[in-house]
Amino acid sequence: MQTIQVGLIGLGNVGGGVATILTQQAELITQRLGARLMLKRAARRHPEHPIDVSLSASQVTGDALAVIHDPEIDIVVELMGGYEPARTYLLEALRAGKHVVTANKALLAEHGQELFEAAAAAGRDIGFEASVGGGIPVIRTIKEGFVANRFGAIASIINGTCNYILSQMSDEDLDFAEALKEAQALGYAEADPHFDIAGIDAAQKIALLASLAFGSWVPHQQVYTEGIDGLSRRDIAYARELGYRIKLLALAKTAGGRLDVRVHPAFVALDSWLAHVNGVHNAVSIQGDAVGRSMLIGRGAGAMPTGSAVVGDVVDVARNILQGSSGRVPPRAYQENSLQQLPLQKIDEVVCRYYLRFQVLDQPGTLAAIAGILGQHDISIESVLQKGRAHAQGTPVSVVMMTHEAREQSVQRALQAIASLPAVQGETIRIRVEDAMET
Amino acid sequence: MQTIQVGLIGLGNVGGGVATILTQQAELITQRLGARLMLKRAARRHPEHPIDVSLSASQVTGDALAVIHDPEIDIVVELMGGYEPARTYLLEALRAGKHVVTANKALLAEHGQELFEAAAAAGRDIGFEASVGGGIPVIRTIKEGFVANRFGAIASIINGTCNYILSQMSDEDLDFAEALKEAQALGYAEADPHFDIAGIDAAQKIALLASLAFGSWVPHQQVYTEGIDGLSRRDIAYARELGYRIKLLALAKTAGGRLDVRVHPAFVALDSWLAHVNGVHNAVSIQGDAVGRSMLIGRGAGAMPTGSAVVGDVVDVARNILQGSSGRVPPRAYQENSLQQLPLQKIDEVVCRYYLRFQVLDQPGTLAAIAGILGQHDISIESVLQKGRAHAQGTPVSVVMMTHEAREQSVQRALQAIASLPAVQGETIRIRVEDAMET
Repeated sequence: MQTIQVGLIGLGNVGGGVATILTQQAELITQRLGARLMLKRAARRHPEHPIDVSLSASQVTGDALAVIHDPEIDIVVELMGGYEPARTYLLEALRAGKHVVTANKALLAEHGQELFEAAAAAGRDIGFEASVGGGIPVIRTIKEGFVANRFGAIASIINGTCNYILSQMSDEDLDFAEALKEAQALGYAEADPHFDIAGIDAAQKIALLASLAFGSWVPHQQVYTEGIDGLSRRDIAYARELGYRIKLLALAKTAGGRLDVRVHPAFVALDSWLAHVNGVHNAVSIQGDAVGRSMLIGRGAGAMPTGSAVVGDVVDVARNILQGSSGRVPPRAYQENSLQQLPLQKIDEVVCRYYLRFQVLDQPGTLAAIAGILGQHDISIESVLQKGRAHAQGTPVSVVMMTHEAREQSVQRALQAIASLPAVQGETIRIRVEDAMET
Repeated sequence: MQTIQVGLIGLGNVGGGVATILTQQAELITQRLGARLMLKRAARRHPEHPIDVSLSASQVTGDALAVIHDPEIDIVVELMGGYEPARTYLLEALRAGKHVVTANKALLAEHGQELFEAAAAAGRDIGFEASVGGGIPVIRTIKEGFVANRFGAIASIINGTCNYILSQMSDEDLDFAEALKEAQALGYAEADPHFDIAGIDAAQKIALLASLAFGSWVPHQQVYTEGIDGLSRRDIAYARELGYRIKLLALAKTAGGRLDVRVHPAFVALDSWLAHVNGVHNAVSIQGDAVGRSMLIGRGAGAMPTGSAVVGDVVDVARNILQGSSGRVPPRAYQENSLQQLPLQKIDEVVCRYYLRFQVLDQPGTLAAIAGILGQHDISIESVLQKGRAHAQGTPVSVVMMTHEAREQSVQRALQAIASLPAVQGETIRIRVEDAMET
């Protein structure tokens, strides 16, 4: 029986999961693959640190290049994260004739074009299922299962940290700061959580998914991104009262030859599938012209779920090695000569319904003034809720409005005009309503 | 550019969808596949009938064998349904060196072993993603995406007819007969709905999924099967009151070296993902030891969703043709020499919680007598609801009990003993509670 040898670069959380799976499931994988997968060597920054995976000391090195250039190793798995030296190592591995697998969405969002082109040029496979949605087989589904579909829209919850925080704020009636602290204590949020809570991680992932679905590279820096740190539990409570939950959505849609790709908090209807994806779970709702609306839910992170996706890719690459069929599915889902460059829609042009919360002094005529300005900007109001009466002269009250569909630019201009009304205090809260992906 | 030619047998609902997709998405598929897929010929029972797909009259024949033996056709797609002559045609196509794709779960559940062995022996591919869950990529996920997992349990809603009927009974407060009639009017149920509502279709599908997940062939006739025709809207209403929805679940679990595969109505918690899969949607919840719990939701039937899955398989086979990598993934997920034969658990041995509804005369001591018999059979009661008082002497009232975990055999025996109590009228309703797949 043939043996295919695997080298690992990075032996942290996910690296440990991959090593555990490759060892513990060795027999099962052989039964399914028809060949042995062997973890030959692993590189880590501190090779002398104790490891709790079944690798002997001699299999662990501090020298990533020794793994990459080991002539017996067929597949190099990069799990160190970050841009460099991960990029250099992957390029070097491809240059050395290795197939590669990575879970590094930041690297792919930033340098994916270079890496995918290098893999295509080298005639080697690059697997990256684990880079988006942990254990959720979303990349395989976009590239293979739904290959017969022209995609219309993807709506996803792909940052577990944010989803955990929002779920806790909603279910336990916590403030953002309290929920963040709890997430950090449980290991669901980093000590420096900026990358997650500002939506950057989600933007990198949706840029990658959009690139695959639409065959057009989406630079992640151009994805309009709002995080969750400005959300208050008051808005979460009003959302529930109105029949919604607030989720950090990562969206990608086609809109008249342009791509509308964005990440921001959004109202999703309580009876939609996305509203029921809570805690650290991730979900990707995909709309294709033939398949209709489909959704994949699962654990978006963690050593074992992410490890499952990494090893799934390793097996996929191994099947290609056994059959001599590397490059069987193009890395970017489209043949290199069929890739295009679609323009991105500006956030100004987005059309959707809006939740608006004004802080106003409880004075006669204020509501009429606000409604008047909205009307002047072609924004019609679907419903209004006034929350409580002022307890004392000069204390602002909340006025909540749900609008009909309106253009983002009109809403921005209207809110600027409304801010200058004397009775309007502080900043108005504006949250988009996402109706497109309801069941 | 290479052209791969496809022949179709069956040009009904799904066949029409496949022809439409192959024609309308020809350019898109070429961009992704790197070769042309051409629908060359299609066979149908009445070739003279008008067709609304973009095939010319000369491409349509009444002779399936002419399609199978067309030397230019590489892939034969069987969409006629039924056991024969579908089985003969697929075997003949494999013998003629063609790759095959089918959406025929009944045929695979009945003759899958023969067909999979024939494909393996011929060194040809057999694709069947469309046979379970329409557009949901469940077979690909079990065989490929989750290949690194030992599966623990699959819980699925895989009959759209039943799910539509149960959803309508619940949401519109309809009787079974009314909901069935409505489903028939909308084309969601057949004129003779027995195959669907008795659970046979779901049993065939879960037998197939279990066979792939566990590498052990599950004869569909041995799957314990209860349908939905015995359900009353009263039980659906009580379920909601208790925090549950009733779904027809198709389950497959490993239990101490045995497989527990069954289809029956079950209580699922209102806050579980499965409870939110309504109407004609299907869903498959998969638990793997590495990936954890994951769920795929989508349209379980219909020309276009099922056609999407069929064409996905055709593209998959075409990639293998282009690369010379046929048989890359074994049809039954495991290598032929690694297949095993695990025994099936008997329904008597199932352990779960139960919903019981007794019809009793409102007499002192009745509840105590029922509770006493349950206790004698080691069944402990979690909660009791008495629904209403008798309006007149001799009118039975409903007593609803939720039990703690109990053995099916004990429940059966206890219900027999309870049936002989003088105050107990008519048949006791017994519905299993499925807790395993909650989020």
